[in-house]
Amino acid sequence: MNINYNLVGLGFIGKIHLMAMNNFNLLDLPIESPIIKNQIVTRNPVDRLSVAKSLGFERTVDSESICFGNDDIQLLDICSPNIYHKDLILKALEAGANIYCEKPLSMNDSETKEILNRYSNSKSKIQLCYTLRYIPAFAKARAAIENNAIGEITSFRIEYYHSSYLNTDKPYAWRLDKEISGGGALYDLGSHAFDILQFLVEPVKEVMCFTDTFVKTRKDSEGNEKTVTVDDWALTHVHTSSNIKGTVEVSRIAVGDDGIRVRIYGTKGSVFVDVYDNPLDVKYYNFLGNKIHLHEDYYNDNSYYKHMIKFYPSPKMSQGFFMDSHIASLASFLYQIENDIVVDKAPSINQCKNIEGILDACQKSVDTKSFEKISI
Amino acid sequence: MNINYNLVGLGFIGKIHLMAMNNFNLLDLPIESPIIKNQIVTRNPVDRLSVAKSLGFERTVDSESICFGNDDIQLLDICSPNIYHKDLILKALEAGANIYCEKPLSMNDSETKEILNRYSNSKSKIQLCYTLRYIPAFAKARAAIENNAIGEITSFRIEYYHSSYLNTDKPYAWRLDKEISGGGALYDLGSHAFDILQFLVEPVKEVMCFTDTFVKTRKDSEGNEKTVTVDDWALTHVHTSSNIKGTVEVSRIAVGDDGIRVRIYGTKGSVFVDVYDNPLDVKYYNFLGNKIHLHEDYYNDNSYYKHMIKFYPSPKMSQGFFMDSHIASLASFLYQIENDIVVDKAPSINQCKNIEGILDACQKSVDTKSFEKISI
Amino acid sequence: MNINYNLVGLGFIGKIHLMAMNNFNLLDLPIESPIIKNQIVTRNPVDRLSVAKSLGFERTVDSESICFGNDDIQLLDICSPNIYHKDLILKALEAGANIYCEKPLSMNDSETKEILNRYSNSKSKIQLCYTLRYIPAFAKARAAIENNAIGEITSFRIEYYHSSYLNTDKPYAWRLDKEISGGGALYDLGSHAFDILQFLVEPVKEVMCFTDTFVKTRKDSEGNEKTVTVDDWALTHVHTSSNIKGTVEVSRIAVGDDGIRVRIYGTKGSVFVDVYDNPLDVKYYNFLGNKIHLHEDYYNDNSYYKHMIKFYPSPKMSQGFFMDSHIASLASFLYQIENDIVVDKAPSINQCKNIEGILDACQKSVDTKSFEKISI
Amino acid sequence: MNINYNLVGLGFIGKIHLMAMNNFNLLDLPIESPIIKNQIVTRNPVDRLSVAKSLGFERTVDSESICFGNDDIQLLDICSPNIYHKDLILKALEAGANIYCEKPLSMNDSETKEILNRYSNSKSKIQLCYTLRYIPAFAKARAAIENNAIGEITSFRIEYYHSSYLNTDKPYAWRLDKEISGGGALYDLGSHAFDILQFLVEPVKEVMCFTDTFVKTRKDSEGNEKTVTVDDWALTHVHTSSNIKGTVEVSRIAVGDDGIRVRIYGTKGSVFVDVYDNPLDVKYYNFLGNKIHLHEDYYNDNSYYKHMIKFYPSPKMSQGFFMDSHIASLASFLYQIENDIVVDKAPSINQCKNIEGILDACQKSVDTKSFEKISI
Repeated sequence: MNINYNLVGLGFIGKIHLMAMNNFNLLDLPIESPIIKNQIVTRNPVDRLSVAKSLGFERTVDSESICFGNDDIQLLDICSPNIYHKDLILKALEAGANIYCEKPLSMNDSETKEILNRYSNSKSKIQLCYTLRYIPAFAKARAAIENNAIGEITSFRIEYYHSSYLNTDKPYAWRLDKEISGGGALYDLGSHAFDILQFLVEPVKEVMCFTDTFVKTRKDSEGNEKTVTVDDWALTHVHTSSNIKGTVEVSRIAVGDDGIRVRIYGTKGSVFVDVYDNPLDVKYYNFLGNKIHLHEDYYNDNSYYKHMIKFYPSPKMSQGFFMDSHIASLASFLYQIENDIVVDKAPSINQCKNIEGILDACQKSVDTKSFEKISI
Repeated sequence: MNINYNLVGLGFIGKIHLMAMNNFNLLDLPIESPIIKNQIVTRNPVDRLSVAKSLGFERTVDSESICFGNDDIQLLDICSPNIYHKDLILKALEAGANIYCEKPLSMNDSETKEILNRYSNSKSKIQLCYTLRYIPAFAKARAAIENNAIGEITSFRIEYYHSSYLNTDKPYAWRLDKEISGGGALYDLGSHAFDILQFLVEPVKEVMCFTDTFVKTRKDSEGNEKTVTVDDWALTHVHTSSNIKGTVEVSRIAVGDDGIRVRIYGTKGSVFVDVYDNPLDVKYYNFLGNKIHLHEDYYNDNSYYKHMIKFYPSPKMSQGFFMDSHIASLASFLYQIENDIVVDKAPSINQCKNIEGILDACQKSVDTKSFEKISI
Repeated sequence: MNINYNLVGLGFIGKIHLMAMNNFNLLDLPIESPIIKNQIVTRNPVDRLSVAKSLGFERTVDSESICFGNDDIQLLDICSPNIYHKDLILKALEAGANIYCEKPLSMNDSETKEILNRYSNSKSKIQLCYTLRYIPAFAKARAAIENNAIGEITSFRIEYYHSSYLNTDKPYAWRLDKEISGGGALYDLGSHAFDILQFLVEPVKEVMCFTDTFVKTRKDSEGNEKTVTVDDWALTHVHTSSNIKGTVEVSRIAVGDDGIRVRIYGTKGSVFVDVYDNPLDVKYYNFLGNKIHLHEDYYNDNSYYKHMIKFYPSPKMSQGFFMDSHIASLASFLYQIENDIVVDKAPSINQCKNIEGILDACQKSVDTKSFEKISI
Repeated sequence: MNINYNLVGLGFIGKIHLMAMNNFNLLDLPIESPIIKNQIVTRNPVDRLSVAKSLGFERTVDSESICFGNDDIQLLDICSPNIYHKDLILKALEAGANIYCEKPLSMNDSETKEILNRYSNSKSKIQLCYTLRYIPAFAKARAAIENNAIGEITSFRIEYYHSSYLNTDKPYAWRLDKEISGGGALYDLGSHAFDILQFLVEPVKEVMCFTDTFVKTRKDSEGNEKTVTVDDWALTHVHTSSNIKGTVEVSRIAVGDDGIRVRIYGTKGSVFVDVYDNPLDVKYYNFLGNKIHLHEDYYNDNSYYKHMIKFYPSPKMSQGFFMDSHIASLASFLYQIENDIVVDKAPSINQCKNIEGILDACQKSVDTKSFEKISI
C-alpha cells in the first residue's frame, strides 16, 4: 500500500516538512510503504500548480476539493495558519484520513472540544508536531528519570530562548498581532516547553505566569507604527500534580543566550539537556554534583527511546537537530499508521489539548495575578 | 600615620580578609600608610593569643576590652556572626574608629536605624563588603551603561547560583536555621545580587518573590534529623523606580550551573557579566545581536572605574576574582580613610540599608503573594 | 533546458549528494533549470533498478553503457571508489558532459596528467568536492584577509581532527589498506586542510611531514588480525610560496577534540574558523589580542563571498554545515554550467592537481625526513 | 626549630613566592615550623632596606654577605636572573642551607655538572620550581595513568600557549635577547611542558624541534629597532624511552588560545588536563570516546597525589591555580625539609638537569634538522 501524502501550506514549516520527507528513502528508516506526493491544498490551485509539480506533487486543490481515496493510506499534513486547522481536521476525520498537524490544534477550547468529539468516533490517527520528543537527548533523559537515575524530582528549570525581537528595527508582522497569531513567546515557545516538561516530569497542576512586552511598538513594512499585542517574554511558576515546583521561561529577546535548556533536579542526581549544544546526549550529575557519564543501560531498553531512535537519522547522516527531529516525528507517525499501533509518549491529541489548557491558565493568571489551576 | 587594624572573627571570611591584606605591600596599591595588625577580638583572648601572634597580631582582646588609640588611623574589621554587629559598630563609632563590616549591617530594621542615627553624628567611615562592585567587569558594565552603550534599559536577568545544597548528605548547620543566619539563599546570595542590580541599573521600587526549600530536612553531626528553616532558592520579580522589569534568581541547588551572571538588555544593545567566566571583561552585544568588543572609551574615563581599577591586582598578580575583589574593596576603603574622601558608588551604609529593605519586601511578598513596595 | 543528472556510487557520499540535491527546489537557490534524475551508474544495473526508481531515477546502467544526450545539460556526479575515477572522467569528457567529482581526481600523477590533457581540449566543466570553500566562515575569512583585516600573514595552524580510530575495537576496513584507499588521515582529511590553506593563504612551496599509525593492527569482520597500512595521524610543517610558515595537523584519534579549526595569524590581527562551533562566522582578533566583531564591510562586497552565499541555505533552512556546504558546492557548480561562467576560487581541476602534489611531497618527506618541494 | 627564609630577587617571580608564603598560616597546611623572614639578598642592601622591612624581613645583604646560621632550618629561595644561580647555589650548598630555586638550574651544562658534583656531597635539599606538578589535575592524571586508567600510552600532545608577543607594538626587552634570557618560548614554556611530559609519561629519548620567530624586530623603550634573537614558537616531535611518539608545542603568539593543555592518549582511554579551564580535575574519556567521570579510586590512594593535595589550598581558599601551585610547591618542600624525607616525583635536581638536556637537544636539532638524542 502506498502512503498518499497531501500538504496544506507551503510556508516555512511546510517546506521543512517536505525537506524532511524528501530524504526518507536515503536514511534507512523502517518505513515500508512508498510515499506518493499527491495534493497540495492551496487557495490558488491554478497559480500554484507549476510549483507543486516542481516539488513532485501530482496536483493542487483548494480546501473544498480535497479528495481522499480509499485504497492507500491517506495522510493530511496541516501547515496552514491556525484559523484553518479545525475545518481541515474535521474534513480529514470524516474521510478517515490520518492527520499530521502543526501545533496548536485549534484556536480555542470549543474548537478543540469539537475536534475531540469527532476524533473519538473516528478511525483516523492524529499526531501533533511536538518535535522535541523526537530529540534523542530528551528521550534519554526521560528514560533515565523513569529508571530512577535522579531519584525523586525536586525541581526543574526550562528555558526556551530566542533573541531576534530585541532588535527594535525588526519590522512589525502578523505574528505580533494576538488576534491572528494567538499569542507571543508564551504560545509559540511555551507550548513546546510545557510539552517537554510533561513528557519528562508529570502533568502540570497549576501555574502563575508573568509576561512582558519589552518592545511595545514596531514599524510595519510601510513605516506605520503598530502596537505589539503579544508578549515577547514569559516566566511561569509551575506546580505539578505531585506538587513539584519549577519554572518555565521563554523569551524572544534573550540576545546571547539562544537555546533550549532543560534542567531536572532530583534527590539522587540531575539531568540537563541543552539542545543546541548537544541534541544527542544528556548531561548527568550525581547527587554530589559530579558530572558523570549516563550509562547506556539507563535508556537502551526503554520502549519509547528504542522506538524513536529508529527514526532519528544517524550522526553521519544528520541534517541538524531541527530537521532530524522533524524527520523522526513524521516517520514515527507514518510507522504507527503503517503498522496500526499507538506508541506511548508520542504526542497524542489529548496531550495537545492539555498543553493548550496550560497556556490558557497562564494567560488567566497574568490577569488574576495568582496561581490558576489547569482545567481538564 | 599608621593604619591600626583590628579584626573580629577568624572564621572563613575573616581569613579571607587577612589573606587579602597580607599581600597589599606586594601589589603596588596606592596605600601609603603602613598597616599594623593590632588586636584580634575574640571571646577567648587567652586561648587565641598564640594563633594571633603567628598571624602577626600584637594581642587579643574580648569585645569589652577593644581599645582604639588616638594617634593612628583606627580600623575595625567585623567578620563576626551577624548578631554581634550592632554592638561592635556602636563601640567603634563611639571611639571614632572606622568600620569595615561584612554584610549585613545588622539583624533587623530597628538595629539598623540605631546604627544610622549614631553614624550621622560620627566622624567614622563605614564600608560594607559588597565586593561585586570591585570586580572590573561590573565597573566596566556600569560605565558602559552610563555612557549609553545600550540605550534605555528594557530588562535584566541576574543569576547567582551555588550548588552544594542539592546534595542531601550535606549535614545540617547553623546557616540553615533562620533565627541564627537571618535567611538562606535569598539573604546570602540575594543581597549581593540586589546590590549589583542597583549599582548597574537603578533603585528597586517593588518586588514579588517566590522561595522554596527543596531539601527540607538534614541530619546534623550527631545524626538527628533537623528541619531546614531557610530557603535554598528564590526567584524575585523586580520593578525598578522607572518601572524596568526583570528577575533576580538565587539558588543553592543549581548543580552544573554555579555562577554569577548578570544580563542587562537595552534598546541599543546588551551587556553581560559572567564573573566566573571572566571577571575582567564584559560581553557586549549591539542591537542586532552581534557580539562586539566594548571599546575602552566606554569606561576608561569613568570616575568609579578609574578609582576601583587602581586597587584591583593586575592580571599577572591575580589571586582569583574572589580574593582580588576583597583586596580592591578593602584597599579602596583604606584609601578613602587615608585621604578623607568619599568615593561615589562605593558601598555606603545607606545603600546597605536599602538592600536590607529589599530583602524584607521580598520576604513579605512571599507571604502576601503580591508585589511589595520597598519602604524607605 | 533541463539538467540531466547521472550518479555513480550510492555509498555514504553518494547519498549525501542526493540528499543535498533533493531539496534544491525548497531553498530558493538561483538555479533555473529543472534537474532530471536520469541514470544511476552501477555494476549491477538489474539488481539496483528498484532502489534507483524509489530514489526518483529513470534507469540504471553499467559504466560501459552510460549514455549522455545532446539536448540537455549533462552532468556526471562521480562518487565511486577512486580507482574508477579516471575512466569515468575520460568517458564524460569525450561526451562533453560536465563532471562533479569527489576528491581525489585520480590514483596517481600519470592518471591526473592524462585527465588534464583531455580536459584542456574539452568543453566540459569539472568541479571537485572541496566543500570547505562553500562554508561561509571560510569565505568571510578569505575576504577579510584579502581586505587586509589582519595585515601580513605571519603564521597559521590548521587542525582537522576526527577521533573514532582511537577505539581499538573498531574493525579493519578497506579504508585502512593503502592500496585501495590511497592513504589515511593525511589523504582523507589532509586534502581538505591543504585546500583551505591555499584558499586562505597562498600556494604551498615545500612541506615536511611526520606521520604515525597508533593502532597498528585491527581485526576484520571475520576476526582475523590485519595490519593497518595507512597513517592515522599526520603533522605537516608547511612553507608557502612567500615563505610563511605554519602547520597542518590531521588526526583520526583525537578523542575529545573533533573539529576543523583554522587559525591565521597576521601582523594586524588574526582570524579563526572553528567549523563545528560556528560555520557561519569567523572569530576575529585585533593586533592587541582583543576579540572584536568582524565588520561586514570586510566581506559583503567580496566577489567570491557574494557568489557562494547565494547558494548556502539560510540559517532557518539549515540542514547542518556538512549538508549545507554540499548543497552550496553542487548548486554553485550547476549555476556555473547553466550560465557558462567560471567562478574564481571555486575548486578547479588545477587546484586539485596541486593538492595531490602536496600530498605526494608530504609522503616523500616522510621517507627523506626533510622538506620536499611541491612539483608543478 | 624555625625556618629561616632568605630570598634573592624581588622581581615578578620573587613577589609571587612571597605572596604564596605570606598566607601559609591561614591555609591549614601541615607545616609546623614558624617561618622567619630573614634576609633579602640584593645588590643594593642599603637602598632596599625599607622595602625589605615593610615586607617583614629583618635585613638586607649582598650576595657576598649572605650568612646562614646553624640553629634553624636554613632556606635560600633563588629568584635572581639565571646568571647568578650557580654561585648562589654553591654558596648555599657550602653552608648546608636548603635551596628552592626558580628554573633553570644554571646557564649551561658545565655549570650544572659543577652544581651536581657539590650537591652529591652535601646535606642540603634542593627543589626547582616546576610547579605544574603541584596542580591537582596533573597529579590525578598521573595517578590514573599509573593505575592503568588509559592502558598503554599511544601518543600525547602538549600545548603551552601564551599570546602577548603577537602584538608588534610590544616593546623589546631583555627576555628577547638570547644571551641574557637563555632562550624564548622553548626555554621559558617548553621547560615546564617537558617536565610535565616526563612526569606523566616517561623519559624523553630523542627530539626534533622546529622553531620560528614571527616578529623579528621590535622597538626598545628609546625607539631603536632591535633584533629578536629568541624564538616565539617551537614545535617539538618527541620520542620517549619506549618509543611513544607525540608533540610538544609552545607559543607566545597564540592569540585566542592561551592555555596549558595536555592530552595523553592510550589504548583504553585518554586523559586531558586543561589547566586554565580546570586545574582541579582531569577530563577522562574511555576507549569508545565517551567522556566519563574519573573515579576517585584512581587517585585517592596514590602516594604522590596524597602528598601534594595536603599542600594545595582548598577550593574555598583558592587564590588561583598559579598562586595555589606555588603555595603547594614551596610548602611541600618545607615539609620535606622539616621531616627530612624525599618525596618521589617532587621535582628533583636530577629531573631538572634532564629537562635542560632536552632543551639542548631541541636546540641542536633545529640546526641539524634531524632527531637528536638526549645526552645523559
